[in-house]
Amino acid sequence: MSQHVSYGNCRVGVPGSHLAITGARFNLAPMSDDFIDIILGAIRQVDLSNVWAKTDHTSTIYRGGSVEVFDALKACFIGSYRPGVHCSLEATLSKGCPGDVDEDTPLSFDGSRINEDRSQATHFPVIGKFAVYPMGSDNYMKTIEKVVNLGIDQGTITGTGHYVTFLGGDVHEVFDYLEQVFKILEQDVSHFVIQVTLLCNVPGGEIDE
Amino acid sequence: MSQHVSYGNCRVGVPGSHLAITGARFNLAPMSDDFIDIILGAIRQVDLSNVWAKTDHTSTIYRGGSVEVFDALKACFIGSYRPGVHCSLEATLSKGCPGDVDEDTPLSFDGSRINEDRSQATHFPVIGKFAVYPMGSDNYMKTIEKVVNLGIDQGTITGTGHYVTFLGGDVHEVFDYLEQVFKILEQDVSHFVIQVTLLCNVPGGEIDE
Repeated sequence: MSQHVSYGNCRVGVPGSHLAITGARFNLAPMSDDFIDIILGAIRQVDLSNVWAKTDHTSTIYRGGSVEVFDALKACFIGSYRPGVHCSLEATLSKGCPGDVDEDTPLSFDGSRINEDRSQATHFPVIGKFAVYPMGSDNYMKTIEKVVNLGIDQGTITGTGHYVTFLGGDVHEVFDYLEQVFKILEQDVSHFVIQVTLLCNVPGGEIDE
Repeated sequence: MSQHVSYGNCRVGVPGSHLAITGARFNLAPMSDDFIDIILGAIRQVDLSNVWAKTDHTSTIYRGGSVEVFDALKACFIGSYRPGVHCSLEATLSKGCPGDVDEDTPLSFDGSRINEDRSQATHFPVIGKFAVYPMGSDNYMKTIEKVVNLGIDQGTITGTGHYVTFLGGDVHEVFDYLEQVFKILEQDVSHFVIQVTLLCNVPGGEIDE
């Protein structure tokens, strides 16, 4: 890459996309010799009719309405689940970036969860960590406090640590909580990011806490 | 977890740690049946004399001076390298959080890179992606532009995508660039986060870009 980027035309507080696009960029890491089959299998079984999707060499991205993006992301992670195989999902969920564009969007914004029925057939426990970054706001610590306390009330938050808050529960419960967090952030700030890591089939006892 | 958190005493723009602590929380994901040995082996071979370190079930954290933390983080990722084994590093680098504390800190802040000699013995190419989150600042897009253009000039940035900027190069070059980004952010903003994913031994050709 030789040409400089310029964000000089961006205005903080004004999303670059006028379509209110939600984006999820994520990596699956199945810790198995079969990682290629597991990753490609997971990606291919998701019904992508309602999101714009692209996989490059570093990650996969879904863009669309927030309901459709959460539906597809959960379906992909659940599709990577194999009994006994330790796997991590690292995802960046973002909305409202002043540098965002109206390109790379899906045709449909009908708010349906077309992968949900199949996703509900599989339940497994996950642990993980997440952080929220409300951008361009001087009140961001209060926003973080609000969403963390919601998760404490719901039982999906298992503790806090340096730089992150810890999550735990059934995979569907945790995704449901993250989607609620997303909706709260949508109300509070113009531009925000949720950074989350979820782990399944974690080897127990190998590493003391 | 039953008790609510409170960040009501935090003041945006005032780091919670008066020791200027840099933190790195990270996950290694070797995509191999030998993942436990690789992760534990990588963690155990790092000289942690100059950082505070803790591994829990979700991730590992180093805290200390920025030079010492970058030294330990690079040593841990390089220590996870095995020829032919695809592995990802996901790391959150953070400084200046208003909710941070002066606890969990190392004894030494002497600015030395005690793992560097051993790290230099191993070189390998990586690709990856990163994003920077300058918090509580209305000028944050300009800060992002500055650090991205630095990487374009140095050749470590290979492109931009939705929500991230793509990285590529020798593992040492990429870490060196990220440390320069960290120093620029230290000058520009009180609280910031760098979120980065690096991948080695990426299977070529399986996934079209």
